[in-house]
Amino acid sequence: MELHADIEHLAMLLGTWRGKGSGHYPTIEDFEYFEEVTFGHVGKPFISYIQKSRDAVTELPLHSEAGYFRPVGAETIELVLAQPSGIVEIHAGVLDGTTIRLESTTVLTTPTAKEVSSVHRIIEVNESILSYEVHMAAVGLPLQHHLSAKLHRQ
Amino acid sequence: MELHADIEHLAMLLGTWRGKGSGHYPTIEDFEYFEEVTFGHVGKPFISYIQKSRDAVTELPLHSEAGYFRPVGAETIELVLAQPSGIVEIHAGVLDGTTIRLESTTVLTTPTAKEVSSVHRIIEVNESILSYEVHMAAVGLPLQHHLSAKLHRQ
Repeated sequence: MELHADIEHLAMLLGTWRGKGSGHYPTIEDFEYFEEVTFGHVGKPFISYIQKSRDAVTELPLHSEAGYFRPVGAETIELVLAQPSGIVEIHAGVLDGTTIRLESTTVLTTPTAKEVSSVHRIIEVNESILSYEVHMAAVGLPLQHHLSAKLHRQ
Repeated sequence: MELHADIEHLAMLLGTWRGKGSGHYPTIEDFEYFEEVTFGHVGKPFISYIQKSRDAVTELPLHSEAGYFRPVGAETIELVLAQPSGIVEIHAGVLDGTTIRLESTTVLTTPTAKEVSSVHRIIEVNESILSYEVHMAAVGLPLQHHLSAKLHRQ
């Protein structure tokens, strides 16, 4: 399927990436994880995103999330995302070189989910390496570093 | 991976389903589509959901969406969902026999998406057949029938 012209500048994301990450937050124990991320397209002006991670020690499934990147012009990117922890995020982002900086405009949770009020996501692609950071304000705490990972193109 | 006890009553959903659907809305032309839906699990208390459809005439990709069903006890179900059209939905649902009735508690859209204010989803499983309906209030119009499909277990 031919790439839609509106996502050509984000083609660097496309494919499957695997690697390792680490997470921390004041309310939980530090943890390390193995991760697989796939960015796909179907010829339309968006990029699909699906993520799965496993605990680096137990190898049991840890987190997953799925969503869609929607470029708006050359520099702006919208992201919609759902998580099995009962969270949906809407982000407004900017592309700066090969770095995407996303800041949530809205985070909503189901009645039984933990409270998350803000999420920042920074994704940087350097040819065959994708690294990202997630900063999160949750359970009443201010925005702070939560996740870092470095993934390799498969 | 063993099924988590909290999703045993929703095991009827698990697997891949394919079939045909039809859609209409006052603001667009009626359309028919081929669809594939996969409900999965990783041993945790949620069910992942991914959907893709193609236009029945042109066979070009039409819609997709991804999200997670989160059972709360035996009869209540939360659903979080993201769509490449720039929409996220949070639903509260009930399980009635083998029918799941979901009503959005919140629908949010990105700045460039079409306005959607409410979505109802009814999913019914009858052994090897999954049928669903989607009702939607969008672009200022009241809640009304939008999609119907009948899928077969693969």
